[in-house]
Amino acid sequence: MVTRVGIVGLGLIGGSLALRLVESGCEVSAWNHTPRPYAAARCAGIRCMDSLEELALQTPDVLLLCNPLRAMPEVLASLSRVLDRDATTLTDVGSVKGMVRRQVAEAGLASCYVGAHPMAGNERSGFSAADARLFDQALWVLTVDGTTSFARFLAVARLVLHGVEDRIIVVDDALHDRSAAMISHMPHVVATAMIDELTASPERCVAAAMSAGSWRDMTRVALTDPQRTKAMVVEDSRNVVGLLRRMSRRLDEAADLLEAGDESGIEGFFAFGQPYRDYRASLAHEADPAEFVLQTAQVRSGEWRRLLRASAVRGERIVDITPDLRIVAQQRDFSAHPVCGVSPRGL
Amino acid sequence: MVTRVGIVGLGLIGGSLALRLVESGCEVSAWNHTPRPYAAARCAGIRCMDSLEELALQTPDVLLLCNPLRAMPEVLASLSRVLDRDATTLTDVGSVKGMVRRQVAEAGLASCYVGAHPMAGNERSGFSAADARLFDQALWVLTVDGTTSFARFLAVARLVLHGVEDRIIVVDDALHDRSAAMISHMPHVVATAMIDELTASPERCVAAAMSAGSWRDMTRVALTDPQRTKAMVVEDSRNVVGLLRRMSRRLDEAADLLEAGDESGIEGFFAFGQPYRDYRASLAHEADPAEFVLQTAQVRSGEWRRLLRASAVRGERIVDITPDLRIVAQQRDFSAHPVCGVSPRGL
Repeated sequence: MVTRVGIVGLGLIGGSLALRLVESGCEVSAWNHTPRPYAAARCAGIRCMDSLEELALQTPDVLLLCNPLRAMPEVLASLSRVLDRDATTLTDVGSVKGMVRRQVAEAGLASCYVGAHPMAGNERSGFSAADARLFDQALWVLTVDGTTSFARFLAVARLVLHGVEDRIIVVDDALHDRSAAMISHMPHVVATAMIDELTASPERCVAAAMSAGSWRDMTRVALTDPQRTKAMVVEDSRNVVGLLRRMSRRLDEAADLLEAGDESGIEGFFAFGQPYRDYRASLAHEADPAEFVLQTAQVRSGEWRRLLRASAVRGERIVDITPDLRIVAQQRDFSAHPVCGVSPRGL
Repeated sequence: MVTRVGIVGLGLIGGSLALRLVESGCEVSAWNHTPRPYAAARCAGIRCMDSLEELALQTPDVLLLCNPLRAMPEVLASLSRVLDRDATTLTDVGSVKGMVRRQVAEAGLASCYVGAHPMAGNERSGFSAADARLFDQALWVLTVDGTTSFARFLAVARLVLHGVEDRIIVVDDALHDRSAAMISHMPHVVATAMIDELTASPERCVAAAMSAGSWRDMTRVALTDPQRTKAMVVEDSRNVVGLLRRMSRRLDEAADLLEAGDESGIEGFFAFGQPYRDYRASLAHEADPAEFVLQTAQVRSGEWRRLLRASAVRGERIVDITPDLRIVAQQRDFSAHPVCGVSPRGL
C-alpha cells in the first residue's frame, strides 16, 4: 500500500482526494498555488508545502497532479527540475489524456508517468467544496502506453483501489479520449445545438413555455459555462469532429426514413440501441466478478497492457489487484448483447 | 365555473384530472374501457358509467377525452351518435393537435371542440398511478382554429384555470405541433441517435463505463418505450423531419468550425444560445403579470384568437380570465433578450 502521497492543487478534486487519502491512513502532503486553503487543510491532517519544489523534495511514492489543465506545462516544467524520477510516480486527473502525456514527455518526465482520470466531480469548485465522499464508488480510467513501467502502474492502481477504494479500467490515451468524446464532449455540442435551434426560432417562447422534463434534462449540460465547454471540446477536437459528423448523418438518415414513411427503417432506428437500454436496466444488479492472474512473463513482455485493455473493452471494471497479481473485475453485460439490426448506411 | 365534467379514460392523465376536479367541487362522471378502476374511482367521488354513450347522455358541460390517441377514431365515432353538441363542449389531452382536430371533424364534432394538451405526466400509467397533484402548476396549451366558438374556448379555459388551477397559452394546432416537435419529439430522436451511436461502437463498454451525469441525462428519454416514442414521432413527422435536418446542419457546421480551428466561429456557436441560458436562470423568479381586456367587438370578430396567440408568442402564460374578460398573464423574458450573433449558415 502506498502511504506517502503528494497532491498538486487543493481544489474540489485535489482537496477531496487529499481528504479521502488521509482517511485511509496515507501521509498526504500538498501544495496549492495560493495558501488560502492551508488552514482548513492542515486541520484535516494534510501537510501543506510552501512551494511545488518543497512538495517534490518530500519524495512521495505517488504525486497526483490535480491542477487545472492550463497550468500543466508550467507545473511540469517546475517538477522536471526537482522530481526524483526513481522515487516518485507521477499521475494526474485531467479529462484529456493524450495531450497531458505529450506535455509530460516534453518535460522529460515520461518514465515515471501513468495517466488517470477519475469519473466524478460536480459543478462546484475550491477546497471549501472538497468532500471525502466525492469519489465514493467512482470509476478511474488509468492510461498507459508501450513504455509505462508495470511497477508505476501498480503504484497508481493500488492507490486508487486500496487508498480511495474505487474501481479502475486500464486503456491507452487514444481510447480514453475517443470514449470521453462519445459520452461527454460530443453530447455537450449536441445540447448546445439544441438550445441554439430553440433560440433561433421566432416562436421560441411557445416552445420554451411547453418544455418540460425531457427538454430540461437534454439541455442541462448546455447551461454550464460555455467557455469551459468550448475549451474541453477544442482539446479533444479531432474525436469530437468525427462523432458530430456521424451524429449528423444519423439524424439525416432518421429524417429520410420518416419522410419516406419507411416503417421498418424507423423501427430499426429505434431498435438499434436496445442493447444499451438493456445494459442500463442491468446496472442495478452487481455483476459476478471475473478473475485472472498476471504471469511474470506477461508482466516482463509488457503483455499486461494488452490484457488489461481487453478486460476494459469486455466491459470489466477492476475492483482489486492482490499481492500475487490476481485481478478481480466485475463485468457489465453491455458487450454480451448482440447488436440487433445494422447501423444505418453502414455508419 | 363549469361544474359538470365528463372524462373518457381513467388512466394516469384522466384519473389525475378526475381526482383534481372532484377536489375543486366539480361533478365528475367517467367512463373507462374496462371497469377495473371503478371501485377505487367511486371511493374518490367519481361517478362511473357503464358505457361511453351513458357518459355522453349525462350532458356534461365539458367532456375531456383522456383515452390513448390510437383509440380516438373509435371513441369519436361512438360519441358522434349520441353527443348533444349544444350542451357539451368537447376537448382532449393529446400530444399532437392537428391530427386530433382532423379526426374530430371527420366525426362531425368540430363545432363543439377545443384542443388541449397539458404539459405534465410521468412514466407511470393507470388509475393506480393517478394523483390529484400531478397537474399542479402545469401549463396547458389550448388550440383553436378559425371556427372555434369563444364560449367553447371559455368553458375549457375556465375549467383549466379555475378547476385545475393551472395556466394556459392559446395557439393554433400547427404552432402547437411545431413547438412540441422542438422541445419533445426531435429531442427524443436525437437521444435515440446518441444511444445508437454508442451501441455501434466496438469500444462501447469503455465509453459506457465512463459515462456519468451528462450522458445519463441526455439519453434518459431514449430509454422510454421505443414503440411509444416512434408513434409520437411518426404522428408529428413533418415537423420532426424539418428539425432533424436543421440539427444535422448545425452539427456539421460545428464540426467544420472545429476542423478549421475557427476560434471566433466556435465562440459564436456557444454564444448563440445565451438568451436561453438567461431565460432558464430567470425562471426562478415570478414575472410581473401583464393584463389586457377582451372587447365585445374583438370576441365577435374572432380577433380574440389572434390576440391570445400573440400573447403566447410574447412568452406570456395566462393565469386568470375574469368574468369581465380581463386576461391576466405572466411573462417570461426569453423573448426580451436580443439574439446575439447570427445563426450559422443562415439557418
